[in-house]
Amino acid sequence: MPSSTNTMSIKATKRRFLAPFTGQSLNPPPVWLMRQAGRYLPEYRATRSEAGGFLKLCYTPRLATEVTLQPIRRYGFDAAILFSDILVVPDALGQTLGFYEGEGPKLDPIRHVAELARLSPEGTGEKFGKVFETVARLRQDLPDETALIGFCGAPWTVATYMVQGEGSSDQAEARLWAYRDPEGFGTLIDILVETSIEYLDGQVKAGADCLQIFDTWAGSLPDTEFDNWVVEPTKRIVEALKEKHPAVPIIGFPKGAGASSLWYVSETGVNGIGCDTAMPPYMMGEAFDGENVVVQGNLDPLLLVTGGQAMEDRVAQILELMTGKPFIFNLGHGIVPQTPPENVARLVELVRQGT
Amino acid sequence: MPSSTNTMSIKATKRRFLAPFTGQSLNPPPVWLMRQAGRYLPEYRATRSEAGGFLKLCYTPRLATEVTLQPIRRYGFDAAILFSDILVVPDALGQTLGFYEGEGPKLDPIRHVAELARLSPEGTGEKFGKVFETVARLRQDLPDETALIGFCGAPWTVATYMVQGEGSSDQAEARLWAYRDPEGFGTLIDILVETSIEYLDGQVKAGADCLQIFDTWAGSLPDTEFDNWVVEPTKRIVEALKEKHPAVPIIGFPKGAGASSLWYVSETGVNGIGCDTAMPPYMMGEAFDGENVVVQGNLDPLLLVTGGQAMEDRVAQILELMTGKPFIFNLGHGIVPQTPPENVARLVELVRQGT
Repeated sequence: MPSSTNTMSIKATKRRFLAPFTGQSLNPPPVWLMRQAGRYLPEYRATRSEAGGFLKLCYTPRLATEVTLQPIRRYGFDAAILFSDILVVPDALGQTLGFYEGEGPKLDPIRHVAELARLSPEGTGEKFGKVFETVARLRQDLPDETALIGFCGAPWTVATYMVQGEGSSDQAEARLWAYRDPEGFGTLIDILVETSIEYLDGQVKAGADCLQIFDTWAGSLPDTEFDNWVVEPTKRIVEALKEKHPAVPIIGFPKGAGASSLWYVSETGVNGIGCDTAMPPYMMGEAFDGENVVVQGNLDPLLLVTGGQAMEDRVAQILELMTGKPFIFNLGHGIVPQTPPENVARLVELVRQGT
Repeated sequence: MPSSTNTMSIKATKRRFLAPFTGQSLNPPPVWLMRQAGRYLPEYRATRSEAGGFLKLCYTPRLATEVTLQPIRRYGFDAAILFSDILVVPDALGQTLGFYEGEGPKLDPIRHVAELARLSPEGTGEKFGKVFETVARLRQDLPDETALIGFCGAPWTVATYMVQGEGSSDQAEARLWAYRDPEGFGTLIDILVETSIEYLDGQVKAGADCLQIFDTWAGSLPDTEFDNWVVEPTKRIVEALKEKHPAVPIIGFPKGAGASSLWYVSETGVNGIGCDTAMPPYMMGEAFDGENVVVQGNLDPLLLVTGGQAMEDRVAQILELMTGKPFIFNLGHGIVPQTPPENVARLVELVRQGT
């Protein structure tokens, strides 16, 4: 590994999750699971119910801390991930946001540069402050050997929700705006880049020792748009965070990017690359060789629902192919609500056996 | 090109759309657009209204013929594509199907092998007969120089709707069934393979001179599942059709398959590969060299909505990169309803200028 990553070695000695970022290959590899704090856990559902809603849960440090810790207590993952949501950023910026059971998030859509005046980048302090307080509590309450991952949504993915006003399969409104008025749309992206830097910086200062940038909707863009709206904004965030906190590794997760993930890694400078379920494990094991990047992934969350021999075989295959490489075991996407908790226990047991 | 494709040369001399399948590179290339008969055209909306519903439109040969011809009259595309829907197959098999405005298709879901008894593979004749009648009418009414593309949905994609009961972003129910009971799910796929062969064979006999297999949901599957449910069933359909009709080229469209498209081409034996918008044009121009396959794609349908310089530049780039290769110009996905018809006219004009 080049000298730029040597600065990570101090923290890495304490928390095995961080070892791969210093170029080490651990056997068994570190493991955590996207959406490991979530609806599949009865104790999560109870705490959410106590909070009286999803957003309230995100903004109540005591309860957000509790749900973050729940899967650590159960499974002893090598990393906890701050419980929050990628839409906390538009919410803190002042865009009206609500979560409705069975419908997902709804925002008052922003579809023109003039409507950006509705956002208040200087007004994020109160809501971000709640999140930072959660991070600080977590760092106190977590076992010392457990790493704490902070995160944000990537500007492109967050923008798709802000412009569409909800989740969508084609992100049409954001893509249309970007084609019609790249400068205006670029202003929204700029706001998100700056706000995300402030948000991640605050999480690190409060105690996060790794960051992940979720770009759920990176996958369907033409290459020019992928460069403009996925790669470039992420690169700016990574550069700014590296300047402030060179010892904190950053994992990018450009879901659906496929072969373009390699380009994403080399251009953005992320220290880790999240691979989704569509990335063949042999490619995960080979494509990033020489890229000085930790690979993270990629069991199908639906195999975690069904469990059994099919899951055991796939886990063995992934571990086999990733042995000897800087690797973190994870899913290819978040845990789904119908996952039996005992399958998660079995998965962790399998990974802990190593190869 | 190897001798196996020489049998295509007779028809190809008459219809320029077919020339690329004999290894020729045309400048300008042939052009058609996925969903070229659709809601963006006022005359389509009028005919659909006359039919009294989407499925009725599919099953009324006079009206299905009319909407297929509408974009040919307007734009003079090199190929017409039969107006129909991929869910005609489950409908003909006896699964209850309805289309509801703003909601998309709804089917009475099949989620267990025992429920396959609800399907009647021997009972497809009446509904398929209506489609074959449309194909025959079309071949009569189309200009002699216009090719006629028949199609079906790939078994995997059709199965995702049959199992989920509607469109979904993650196709979870089909994927879960496939993991839990690969044999039972394989029985559904077998039924779809056999029925699709019968369906495509009938379309060719009625006058289709090219076929396309739409696999809209090929993209998010892990490699093992991609092999089992996308590649293998498609290969069986292609082999059966090649045996019956060696002169009829088959285009596969495994949307979202990315770098796996190459594997798909070499394993299934398709004569053409549809590329979606996420495939970088430089990759479209290079990845399939030596694969003896026609490349088709891949303008972003949303650029066709916005039009203007961005569209002109992208069209020029695609044409430039594909010059000298067997290529068919198309979109990377279907035309969307809000597309201005004049942008389609301009696109065709641009493509017709060649390089």
